[in-house]
Amino acid sequence: MRTAIFPGSFDPFTLGHMDVLESSLKLFDNIIIAVGFNSAKEKGYFKPELRVEMIKDIIRDKKNISVCSYSELTVELCKKLNVNYIVRGLRTTTDFELESVIAQANKKMKKDILTVFIPACQEYSFISSTVVRDVLIHNGDASMFLPENIDIEKYIEMNRK
Amino acid sequence: MRTAIFPGSFDPFTLGHMDVLESSLKLFDNIIIAVGFNSAKEKGYFKPELRVEMIKDIIRDKKNISVCSYSELTVELCKKLNVNYIVRGLRTTTDFELESVIAQANKKMKKDILTVFIPACQEYSFISSTVVRDVLIHNGDASMFLPENIDIEKYIEMNRK
Amino acid sequence: MRTAIFPGSFDPFTLGHMDVLESSLKLFDNIIIAVGFNSAKEKGYFKPELRVEMIKDIIRDKKNISVCSYSELTVELCKKLNVNYIVRGLRTTTDFELESVIAQANKKMKKDILTVFIPACQEYSFISSTVVRDVLIHNGDASMFLPENIDIEKYIEMNRK
Amino acid sequence: MRTAIFPGSFDPFTLGHMDVLESSLKLFDNIIIAVGFNSAKEKGYFKPELRVEMIKDIIRDKKNISVCSYSELTVELCKKLNVNYIVRGLRTTTDFELESVIAQANKKMKKDILTVFIPACQEYSFISSTVVRDVLIHNGDASMFLPENIDIEKYIEMNRK
Amino acid sequence: MRTAIFPGSFDPFTLGHMDVLESSLKLFDNIIIAVGFNSAKEKGYFKPELRVEMIKDIIRDKKNISVCSYSELTVELCKKLNVNYIVRGLRTTTDFELESVIAQANKKMKKDILTVFIPACQEYSFISSTVVRDVLIHNGDASMFLPENIDIEKYIEMNRK
Amino acid sequence: MRTAIFPGSFDPFTLGHMDVLESSLKLFDNIIIAVGFNSAKEKGYFKPELRVEMIKDIIRDKKNISVCSYSELTVELCKKLNVNYIVRGLRTTTDFELESVIAQANKKMKKDILTVFIPACQEYSFISSTVVRDVLIHNGDASMFLPENIDIEKYIEMNRK
Repeated sequence: MRTAIFPGSFDPFTLGHMDVLESSLKLFDNIIIAVGFNSAKEKGYFKPELRVEMIKDIIRDKKNISVCSYSELTVELCKKLNVNYIVRGLRTTTDFELESVIAQANKKMKKDILTVFIPACQEYSFISSTVVRDVLIHNGDASMFLPENIDIEKYIEMNRK
Repeated sequence: MRTAIFPGSFDPFTLGHMDVLESSLKLFDNIIIAVGFNSAKEKGYFKPELRVEMIKDIIRDKKNISVCSYSELTVELCKKLNVNYIVRGLRTTTDFELESVIAQANKKMKKDILTVFIPACQEYSFISSTVVRDVLIHNGDASMFLPENIDIEKYIEMNRK
Repeated sequence: MRTAIFPGSFDPFTLGHMDVLESSLKLFDNIIIAVGFNSAKEKGYFKPELRVEMIKDIIRDKKNISVCSYSELTVELCKKLNVNYIVRGLRTTTDFELESVIAQANKKMKKDILTVFIPACQEYSFISSTVVRDVLIHNGDASMFLPENIDIEKYIEMNRK
Repeated sequence: MRTAIFPGSFDPFTLGHMDVLESSLKLFDNIIIAVGFNSAKEKGYFKPELRVEMIKDIIRDKKNISVCSYSELTVELCKKLNVNYIVRGLRTTTDFELESVIAQANKKMKKDILTVFIPACQEYSFISSTVVRDVLIHNGDASMFLPENIDIEKYIEMNRK
Repeated sequence: MRTAIFPGSFDPFTLGHMDVLESSLKLFDNIIIAVGFNSAKEKGYFKPELRVEMIKDIIRDKKNISVCSYSELTVELCKKLNVNYIVRGLRTTTDFELESVIAQANKKMKKDILTVFIPACQEYSFISSTVVRDVLIHNGDASMFLPENIDIEKYIEMNRK
Repeated sequence: MRTAIFPGSFDPFTLGHMDVLESSLKLFDNIIIAVGFNSAKEKGYFKPELRVEMIKDIIRDKKNISVCSYSELTVELCKKLNVNYIVRGLRTTTDFELESVIAQANKKMKKDILTVFIPACQEYSFISSTVVRDVLIHNGDASMFLPENIDIEKYIEMNRK
């Protein structure tokens, strides 16, 4: 039984993340989507608890996936959950360099951590949370960037409260 | 008649932007310089209305160029202005990756949009608005990075008010 | 009337090239596809005259496009044809860096040359002539990477003679 | 039971490859190291059959690993072996871009193929087969780049025959 | 006698910086570590005066090194100190592009400035101040990323006041 | 007294190399330009002995510079000449990645070697030997890419013999 965490800020969870998630399910028996946030850092667009709710909504009919939020170091979460695999999607060379440094630092802090990279599928390679947030901030239609079964309007409404 | 928008934050408009503008005039019959800003995002250095004024000043003797500011999505501006071409300058590989993602997302949202990239000319390849702002913040002399006919001191003064 | 050359080795012309060609037709009134080859360099896979034939075949129903082959410097071809625009597609950051250097060198050798970059559309971003040649060399099915109306088997056959 | 192929030219198999192999064994139940070569392409340094022998030598005490050579497309090998996973190590952004294109092309040719990237460990990030070949060509000592249990002199000698 | 400044935000000074410093001492007779900060910009994690204190602590047994803080342009500091060399470490391609632009802009503003790049040693290539701050913010153990003779807990405590 | 080698294939020595050379003279007391070639590899354009002659011609009025050719590993040359510094120019991120790997491998093979990178000056950033060779192969005018005091036609003539 291999369990991996799929950490990210998921602000919000996009079709690109969905594709990485589906690829990960072919590699691991269980995936824990871990929504990271840090009160000291910038706030983001969606409140962390809403990001978790959205993901729960998106994966409601899927097996072997769970969701949690965390505010500690990713390696600390791995220790707590007794997980040795981290999975991350890669779209650009900038992603690659950033993620490589993090993977090496994580390995330094916890020797038995293995980070696995999944290349973005070509169809969704241009979808990033940044693009989606930019569309949402400008009241544009972001539905083409998001999983089909998510009612983004509902979450935007909830986020305003 | 081909009209393109040349979108950017232009905080401020530099010699590098001027070079892209002049190249664009060889490709298009009209260029609309579109100063993007977003109240929800970081403020920038120059107030958006001043950036527009500066550009008007810079292009005052040039034909076939106009300036506007906008706060909607770039594709929404294109729809409103009935323009199908976007022109962007490229300096670095980081620019290229970021701009490619945006170009693909824009095409996804408006099928007939064509984004055209102009490579930075070698002479101005090191000039970015970030560098210029950094010089201005430190009270340095930024005139070598800016179009000749602009009185930057005047705008810095106006920006303080 | 704006005419551009679209230079390349086109060994062979792929769906990715087709996409750049179609975008170019929105920017220019005429496009000259220029198949570059150099007897002193490596031979390539398809003979240059066959590459030209293939492209003629591919564009047979399209207007405002012509094909030629050339073995001189690209700027020399531009002078000969009295053309001031060069169009190139960009897929990766490696493409970008290589093409930027060439664009700057070309501008140095002929001041009024403007090189325009078209970003690869996301759908074909993974298609390169290298990938196609690799598939062909291994007798794989490359039809999904090539324009629909081309009978690649015929050209492979002709190339063997 | 998950089986992956680890394809490459392995000319020769380095400590960097060894690190990717060991990481892969944590992800998959079986790994097939697949030495690719193509008579039509450049010859390489070590003869393909020697590269296979060297790897057999290196993994002689390890379980769940096998070695083969192949000259078809990687996706064809996957079909033949009924394998749906490909594992590749990544060192540089150049690697990343090249491998992403190949992964996407492979997925296009065989829908259920999943390519997984393992980041080079920091300790061996500077070791490439190119560097090793360069040292060997100049009669330098390459032992620090190679798995401990390999007698590289023996294979250099065998390669000369 | 060649003196260089080694400018940076050093928030905090890491093992990676130490490695660049030690390489620089082989190139220059004196090194001035210059801690840059700007009241108008983001605050950073450690207060600038603490960063200077930490570095003084780290280099207390080393010769030919001094530390200062500055808030002007780096070229202005060079003029004031009558120094013509700037030394910077490079870890990633993103570093390289950013630093190249700054080096060219600095040369434009002060003709006789020479910027020298030192490649990160492979052992510390994954250590950045960003990674260290992230560990510190999450109350993790960052000692493996920091010079041995520094009592980071003391400075975290002082930073809180 | 600090002596550095400036290794390269210099096929041919360009204005870009000249700029790196002049920067190096500000850092080191002596520079040895080392023309590397390898009989087992591709031949290049100019014969190695002609490349050396050209450089001698170019530096004939300069002090503290010498030229040699070598066919061993660069670290072996360093040992032979008792030199601990290597200087290399960087133009692109591709250069940077390649050179970083080589610098780290060299350091692994000879602990006290320090590789120093000089960023290409913006004026010559588009000049590479590849571009120059391409111009020469096509009988173009490459004089704008080459040091002023070199009679390239003479060397082309000598190279033909």
